[in-house]
Amino acid sequence: MTRSSTVNQESTAFKPEKLIQGERFGSSINVDEINAFLESSPEKRDETQALIQEIVEDPILKTDSSIYDKGKPEERAMTARKISRLALYMEHDIKTARKHFKGTDLIEELQKDTESKLPALNNKDLSIFDKRLSLLHNIDPQLGTRVGVHLGLFGNCIKGNGTNEQIHYWLQERGSSFMKGIYGCFGMTELGHGSNVARLQTRATYNPSSDTFTLQTPDLLATKFWIGGAANSATHCSVYARLIVEGRDYGIKTFVVPLRNPETFQLFPGVAVGDIGHKMGRNGIDNGWIQFHHVVIPREYMLSRFTQVIPSKTPGGKAAVRTQPQLDQISGYSALLSGRVNMVMDSFRFGSKFAIIGARYAVGRQQFANAGQSESQLIDYPLHQYRVLPQIAVPYLVSPVAFKLLDRYYSTLDELYRVSSPATFDETGLSIVSRKLKNLFIDSASLKATNTWLVSEVIDQLRQSCGGQGYSSYNAFGKGYEDWVVQCTWEGDNNILSLSSAKSILKKFAASRRGIFDRSLDSSSFNYLEPPFVRAVLTGQETASLSQLQDYTKVWAIALVKFLNHLAKLVDVTKDLDSVAKLLVLVSKFHALHSMLQAYYEKLNSPKNSHVTDAATETLLWDIYRLFSLFFIDKHSGEFQQFKVFTPDQISQTVQPKFFELLPKVRESIIPLTDAFKLPDGMINAPIGYFDGDIYHNYFNEILQQNPVDSADTPPCADLFTRMLNRRSEFHYVFGGSVETELINKK
Amino acid sequence: MTRSSTVNQESTAFKPEKLIQGERFGSSINVDEINAFLESSPEKRDETQALIQEIVEDPILKTDSSIYDKGKPEERAMTARKISRLALYMEHDIKTARKHFKGTDLIEELQKDTESKLPALNNKDLSIFDKRLSLLHNIDPQLGTRVGVHLGLFGNCIKGNGTNEQIHYWLQERGSSFMKGIYGCFGMTELGHGSNVARLQTRATYNPSSDTFTLQTPDLLATKFWIGGAANSATHCSVYARLIVEGRDYGIKTFVVPLRNPETFQLFPGVAVGDIGHKMGRNGIDNGWIQFHHVVIPREYMLSRFTQVIPSKTPGGKAAVRTQPQLDQISGYSALLSGRVNMVMDSFRFGSKFAIIGARYAVGRQQFANAGQSESQLIDYPLHQYRVLPQIAVPYLVSPVAFKLLDRYYSTLDELYRVSSPATFDETGLSIVSRKLKNLFIDSASLKATNTWLVSEVIDQLRQSCGGQGYSSYNAFGKGYEDWVVQCTWEGDNNILSLSSAKSILKKFAASRRGIFDRSLDSSSFNYLEPPFVRAVLTGQETASLSQLQDYTKVWAIALVKFLNHLAKLVDVTKDLDSVAKLLVLVSKFHALHSMLQAYYEKLNSPKNSHVTDAATETLLWDIYRLFSLFFIDKHSGEFQQFKVFTPDQISQTVQPKFFELLPKVRESIIPLTDAFKLPDGMINAPIGYFDGDIYHNYFNEILQQNPVDSADTPPCADLFTRMLNRRSEFHYVFGGSVETELINKK
Repeated sequence: MTRSSTVNQESTAFKPEKLIQGERFGSSINVDEINAFLESSPEKRDETQALIQEIVEDPILKTDSSIYDKGKPEERAMTARKISRLALYMEHDIKTARKHFKGTDLIEELQKDTESKLPALNNKDLSIFDKRLSLLHNIDPQLGTRVGVHLGLFGNCIKGNGTNEQIHYWLQERGSSFMKGIYGCFGMTELGHGSNVARLQTRATYNPSSDTFTLQTPDLLATKFWIGGAANSATHCSVYARLIVEGRDYGIKTFVVPLRNPETFQLFPGVAVGDIGHKMGRNGIDNGWIQFHHVVIPREYMLSRFTQVIPSKTPGGKAAVRTQPQLDQISGYSALLSGRVNMVMDSFRFGSKFAIIGARYAVGRQQFANAGQSESQLIDYPLHQYRVLPQIAVPYLVSPVAFKLLDRYYSTLDELYRVSSPATFDETGLSIVSRKLKNLFIDSASLKATNTWLVSEVIDQLRQSCGGQGYSSYNAFGKGYEDWVVQCTWEGDNNILSLSSAKSILKKFAASRRGIFDRSLDSSSFNYLEPPFVRAVLTGQETASLSQLQDYTKVWAIALVKFLNHLAKLVDVTKDLDSVAKLLVLVSKFHALHSMLQAYYEKLNSPKNSHVTDAATETLLWDIYRLFSLFFIDKHSGEFQQFKVFTPDQISQTVQPKFFELLPKVRESIIPLTDAFKLPDGMINAPIGYFDGDIYHNYFNEILQQNPVDSADTPPCADLFTRMLNRRSEFHYVFGGSVETELINKK
Repeated sequence: MTRSSTVNQESTAFKPEKLIQGERFGSSINVDEINAFLESSPEKRDETQALIQEIVEDPILKTDSSIYDKGKPEERAMTARKISRLALYMEHDIKTARKHFKGTDLIEELQKDTESKLPALNNKDLSIFDKRLSLLHNIDPQLGTRVGVHLGLFGNCIKGNGTNEQIHYWLQERGSSFMKGIYGCFGMTELGHGSNVARLQTRATYNPSSDTFTLQTPDLLATKFWIGGAANSATHCSVYARLIVEGRDYGIKTFVVPLRNPETFQLFPGVAVGDIGHKMGRNGIDNGWIQFHHVVIPREYMLSRFTQVIPSKTPGGKAAVRTQPQLDQISGYSALLSGRVNMVMDSFRFGSKFAIIGARYAVGRQQFANAGQSESQLIDYPLHQYRVLPQIAVPYLVSPVAFKLLDRYYSTLDELYRVSSPATFDETGLSIVSRKLKNLFIDSASLKATNTWLVSEVIDQLRQSCGGQGYSSYNAFGKGYEDWVVQCTWEGDNNILSLSSAKSILKKFAASRRGIFDRSLDSSSFNYLEPPFVRAVLTGQETASLSQLQDYTKVWAIALVKFLNHLAKLVDVTKDLDSVAKLLVLVSKFHALHSMLQAYYEKLNSPKNSHVTDAATETLLWDIYRLFSLFFIDKHSGEFQQFKVFTPDQISQTVQPKFFELLPKVRESIIPLTDAFKLPDGMINAPIGYFDGDIYHNYFNEILQQNPVDSADTPPCADLFTRMLNRRSEFHYVFGGSVETELINKK
């Protein structure tokens, strides 16, 4: 009765594949255009599709459902094999980006280029590989992380804090950027300190006599902890430690510290490393702990773009420290920016995967009927539409803002590199870029927190919408959730990030109330703080409406102004920002939702950028936009009413009816809408969500494959059960209840 | 630098144990009284404590953190061992309940009592063991389930649907209730049908010639699926199948079908069984699939309390079917009632475990400080209080309603058994008990759904509040969540249960509007539907206030009436209940929250029932009650404003300020409040949450124990990494870029 059997193939049983295929044939929606919209352009769409194809067809990189039965050691080994494979793709991708395959070996050239005669390795060179990595995250996030820690965190720590020479040396000459020579980990967090980086306790004490630093872990709580790659794979670590020079503590700086010999993988003396063991998810990452016992490194291993230790020129004289405080701190944390920006992109891709599974199951699954009728498809129940459709809208609304943020991140970092390089140093530029970086911190923090939370919810809600099958590991939700939710905690806990981003927004609001607004920097994501708009909202000239498309973004701008005004008044009374922290977290969420709607609106509203020409398709995309906005207005109707954006009657008579009207409309296109993400089965790895829609056969076959039936005859632990079920009474009448075995022993 | 080391034990490092112990010594709260309140009486408190002690000290039943590193096969084997152990406790517990240890072996007597001369095995006999099982659920939920399916679902299916003789035979004589002779599984769900039990497809066709039934799985979708115990351990299955007699389909009835020989564990002919494989959690349960290929069972194996097949007395004559439609369906599903009721109790216990971990970490963990000051405890941040304290309040508010529901369940089922037994048959009683059962369905559905969702949120929020350490498997959140969330899906999907419960409530509301209200049955959980109260709310005589303690329950009653009135109007217009399904789900949640507050209020308000005599302790317990109510009013402030229970200004000026005032007050007692759950470390299995508060040493030691450091010198997969990092360039200049190995092959 498995797929290959012919028993009752034409019985009364459901035919989900016909339902799902039927929705495809019945729709005129242009799936390719939507995909170009989501991937930001037709060119990028094609590039993405080609990379996805390469991933799912590579014999080592491809991932199938056997992954759901793997334990920690197997996941670790599989991940290591994939990394080793990825290193070859990386060389190839850099050569492709530079169109340099002949004559000389580009990678060798770059490594040998000690005098920097060739153009330095830049973000554009890595763009293909970065995208490959981002797509890989979708089928195997732990692989993405275990490589991302090396390339992203370790690499960006060096890029953000190293001098041009140091960047060139570590990343290019030593080969780190090519996954050659060294493999890095990122030594920020300690057992005692996560969010509060400024209070880390690892010490790097300068030794004037030998011109070196001694790294020291002073106590258990200063143990570097959660360090991805430390347990098994890293040879070097970018260590965040207190710089101590001549007895003075200069705060946290960054140092490259060798951990293991890259040829033998033996630990260097003084370095103690261990595995922190099993985690909720991503067990393919070898997170570890590190303790330093008097580990000595040359002075040159301190990353010195903004802070330098200058040895005394006279023997026995005092060493000096030179630092550029303006950028020192912000650049210190800049390594985390890349992670946050990428997590917004991850949110788009990861969310879309579960949207597909949830949608196909909702269309293919039938349950309950009126007497005599065939059972209804789940998606035709209004409750199911409510549970599923807004979750599908989430990745749609993430995409435009994710691409926008990524572009902004690269351009700002390039600018920082340029204005802070000796040859092109620019003091004014430095001051501007530092403000741009601060805005990028606010936006990326708010978007990272909001979107990683939204996608946790997407996975959880859609899992529940698939009933029992959602709880089966083979349908991807379990592992997906376990792997995903760490994104809400690492590289900035979502609550802390939201809080700090909202505090900055509240400051900008206070400035705006005094008429201060930086039009050149703040007119995009902070446009709701333009003083005339704020005044218009607060004087009641500008009120919420939902008549035009842009209103669906603007209501959030109005809500933000009123919300911030409420908060400003509360803080005036209490003088205590922390007391309103719960509300501040919501401000950050509102800010993110506004940015998402704004980016989506701007893109779809511009035919040049949207790449959508088909009218019905465009209408559908606007429906998604309105659905998303209305869903969250309704979800936050408490705040919308409390801050008098809408009256209670407007919620009942306008917001909710408009929302409920949209659901059956969007439902019509649920299959094209999720087909449009264009993820092949090999990226979904959930048989209830495969393209052909043959839900039950696909799922049952997967189960048979992973759990062959021949073991059913003599089930595991049968001995324990037969022993238990056939046990005799251990009771002896003669001695009034003593157990027999005791009596036997007494004889 | 581990616990045993003496390095820097007195460094500047944090001392969480001093902070946590300090809060204990500084508090006058009476933890014992609170525990008696939570456990429902001092006697039950003592019983619970004794059972917990036995569990955590039993060499086989105890669970330590090594469980977090176990794969599926190890979890299965461990669970089987524990079941075998539990069987012995069960005999002992029944003997204890009957105070029968001497003279004869009680279990043997009961099994041999074929003529029912002894008092039949009843719920009271099993009460100690049931509690033991419920407590075991807290450290190892999969064990609880794997036993619960046999005793609860299989057993209750027989109890609810079998004749007295059948009950006696299967449960007592065959030994099922003693975990002897047979081990049962519960064959309800099929691959194609979960929620819609009425459309199950497995067929049981009556054969008049042999007076038997033939069980048949007609197609793949009719495969019994998700059946706990089927893959490995069950010998018998209570199968839900369509009764076909003389060509007529009588709908779903229940049958006991032998699967395996209990002595050899070989499958019987025609029975095909397989493992459904890896799940998000509870992998110790051997969920399986079953297909029946012409499996023949005697007519007597159909459970026939309410439906009987009567063979023709004349050869070749027609068999007849006699059925009591009134109770047939409701009793058919009654096996699920026990599960739902127990899940409410599980919510109390499981929630309390994570409340303890979250509280101790929040008090012991310090992060961020003003310059020069020592870092603040997390719990002293208002945002952290907001994140943690309402979650701790959840298990407090679950406890009273859980005990109340359990009592009601047992008394109603006893009544049903009595009035439907031939000797004590009572037609009027049957009609009353059937209405009581319906109410129990409404309440248990609403409470099961709401509380299992609330506890998912408790685990998720508290995990996030523990930052990175919350993501480590050793701190219990990961596995806890994975094991827990299936409670939101199985034995009635939460959304479907909420919907059906709210539809019944809406019907009761409509009746109340016509003046119909059953005071004898509905005055407890449906008291808000008393016609005078409904009128008073809708005419504005009764308005929401928060001045007295009982108001914190009453506002929910008012909100429910207004909410239902809004819905009734919507349905009047649309004539379609499904279109307002999203709102109905919320009605069910409001109903549950009201029931919880009501049960808590009634208990604490009665000195006889609360067992609380200390004034400060009582005040604290009232603060918890108010905190819970305010937290959820604020969370649902959208509905409270939309339905005009509170105005926007009341939310800003009354609800939120009262709520924010309570947080720092309750914060003072967070350690006593969670100590009061009285769960020993062996039931917590999360080193950051142990009683002594030595968070960092406990955690680091656990990691060292599960991940010995001696493997660090030659890390796993070092060969792959050295090969990758030291790879040479595969490029040959001569042929303009072909890789060297290719050139060699060409030569």
